[in-house]
Amino acid sequence: MATSRFFNMPPFASTRNKSKVSLQRVNITSNAIQKTVRFSVINCSLKINHAQPALNDEIRVPSVIKEMENEEITSPSVAGRLVKGGPVFQQNVCVRSFEIDSEYKMSTKAIMNYLQEASLNYAKKLGLTIDTRFGITPGMRKMDLVWVFRGMHIEVDRYPCWGEVVQILHWTCASGRTGVRFDWTINDINTGETLVRASCLAVMMNKNTRKTCKFPEEVKDEIKAYLREDVEPIVEAFKYSCPQIEAMDHIKTGLTPGWNDLDVNYHVNNAKYLDWILESTPDSIRDRHELWKMNFEYRKECLKDDVVQSLSRVVPSNEKNREIEVEHVLRLESGHQVLRARTVWRTNSHSCKGINSMKTIF
Amino acid sequence: MATSRFFNMPPFASTRNKSKVSLQRVNITSNAIQKTVRFSVINCSLKINHAQPALNDEIRVPSVIKEMENEEITSPSVAGRLVKGGPVFQQNVCVRSFEIDSEYKMSTKAIMNYLQEASLNYAKKLGLTIDTRFGITPGMRKMDLVWVFRGMHIEVDRYPCWGEVVQILHWTCASGRTGVRFDWTINDINTGETLVRASCLAVMMNKNTRKTCKFPEEVKDEIKAYLREDVEPIVEAFKYSCPQIEAMDHIKTGLTPGWNDLDVNYHVNNAKYLDWILESTPDSIRDRHELWKMNFEYRKECLKDDVVQSLSRVVPSNEKNREIEVEHVLRLESGHQVLRARTVWRTNSHSCKGINSMKTIF
Repeated sequence: MATSRFFNMPPFASTRNKSKVSLQRVNITSNAIQKTVRFSVINCSLKINHAQPALNDEIRVPSVIKEMENEEITSPSVAGRLVKGGPVFQQNVCVRSFEIDSEYKMSTKAIMNYLQEASLNYAKKLGLTIDTRFGITPGMRKMDLVWVFRGMHIEVDRYPCWGEVVQILHWTCASGRTGVRFDWTINDINTGETLVRASCLAVMMNKNTRKTCKFPEEVKDEIKAYLREDVEPIVEAFKYSCPQIEAMDHIKTGLTPGWNDLDVNYHVNNAKYLDWILESTPDSIRDRHELWKMNFEYRKECLKDDVVQSLSRVVPSNEKNREIEVEHVLRLESGHQVLRARTVWRTNSHSCKGINSMKTIF
Repeated sequence: MATSRFFNMPPFASTRNKSKVSLQRVNITSNAIQKTVRFSVINCSLKINHAQPALNDEIRVPSVIKEMENEEITSPSVAGRLVKGGPVFQQNVCVRSFEIDSEYKMSTKAIMNYLQEASLNYAKKLGLTIDTRFGITPGMRKMDLVWVFRGMHIEVDRYPCWGEVVQILHWTCASGRTGVRFDWTINDINTGETLVRASCLAVMMNKNTRKTCKFPEEVKDEIKAYLREDVEPIVEAFKYSCPQIEAMDHIKTGLTPGWNDLDVNYHVNNAKYLDWILESTPDSIRDRHELWKMNFEYRKECLKDDVVQSLSRVVPSNEKNREIEVEHVLRLESGHQVLRARTVWRTNSHSCKGINSMKTIF
């Protein structure tokens, strides 16, 4: 099973529970370039004003966040803060020069890294983690349990630029009897516009047997105060069929993890998988398009000495469609699949090319 | 020639001018674990109190920095600030979960990335850069010049931990007729202790001919207000002889850059070289020691399709010596050398293992 920096990922397709309400998405306005999420917070421990008008009279960030806008929104928040006592975690981050791609935009890999950073800081802030085991509660340690990722879904409406400070919001929800769902948004700190939405299912795995198990009540009790119930994912996985390995015509073999790709457990960091997916994505797509939507289904751990093959196939589509879908598989030389993924690409917006405008940030 | 994220690096051994005074190191107290730098700032545009007592009655950071301690030291500073009008740049950064190694300490690669980030932000803050060309002044653009790195020297006294906020100080100095030297320290934000010292020589290269040239007066005029004259490097390269290729007995072949290793010019980022060096460093050294000192001599650019060999050799030494020296060469399959390096390793301090203590940071 593969791992995020500190979470493992087991070999199952993700299951997802339908939800009632708590953090509830109420409207999505969408076009090919930009998607704005309107949502409100109800039925949880905080009482929220429903809707302050923002840009274009739309609510672009959760109301709970609008309330604290003048509190600390531009403060360091380097390690993040609990919003209104805990149900949402907020962390501001600055996009670094080494986190951008050749278009001067934050790389998708960097985005994935920061999502995880927010999760770990949230757990730490809540005092739920112990010792050196990131994200491990006392109950989990007693039962030799670790978190494992099963599926990650990300939608990027606009990639932030170098030097841009963005706000990450993060919350967790119960998901069925076995899992927890992590949700994140990354928002423009000035306009409140939602730039990135991501949702990830994690379950418990016994680290000795490497088998997943039900979410133990003892652990649930430890974190229940911060576990929302019955909340819609901030982004849904898009539907697609099982990848056709035999039809995959873009193949890169001999990919090996470097020392800097390993987590504290010497597993390959899940963001590295994105690097490997890109290795077999056709140049024509990678150069003239940008990653818009991603579905990752984690199936197996990957270790230091594994040699990985990256396979991709462009999904045939209507020519008028400017979106391109690509299916991907990462597998070991033994044939065992490490990851299945589906990506959707759109025409490159080059939104950070006018770097002059960035001077105003500094 | 190889590049940092935005600077290129040409095929020459670095030359270094002896200096008079401006930012002057006045004393170094050293032991195997920790080295403390005492230095004062004189003979530049700012008038500085010489010595406020710090920990153990030693001056651990430049006096100019001690003065501003209560100003903004814990503020966001995400994009950095000019200290006292410009001669020193300061930026605070938080060590992220994805920037640490398996010992929970900030990776050397992450340190190199942040050194460069500080340089780029300094140039941007001074208004010296234009367009999308990071670090390029108007005069440089007119003459088709880019910065190229020749040599980088880093000494790490203590690696920061995940979640730790550290302060980067950065200044630039004229270096002979052809170059500019970048100096950095990374400091413990609470104690002022110097954790990392780094020094890098950069020269001008014509991007069409790929040849280096003298430092043009026009460009010097553009940046002279912020260019210290005759200042000792904050860290000196340690002396070593030319690596003996034929004696190198740890070899890793077939190393290729991934898309995420490229800069905006599609060159391999210089921090990636460190990854490759580690690939041929013996496990016994990498696992039980930590990188203490590094000398990098950049000799050739490396591009997307290059295939690199990493060669290393442990330098024989007195058995009583707990330091281990390793010499490294990165070369293309054609035999052209990309990088020569020498690293010094010391027994692993495991200084971040007691992660419990980090809770106090949050």
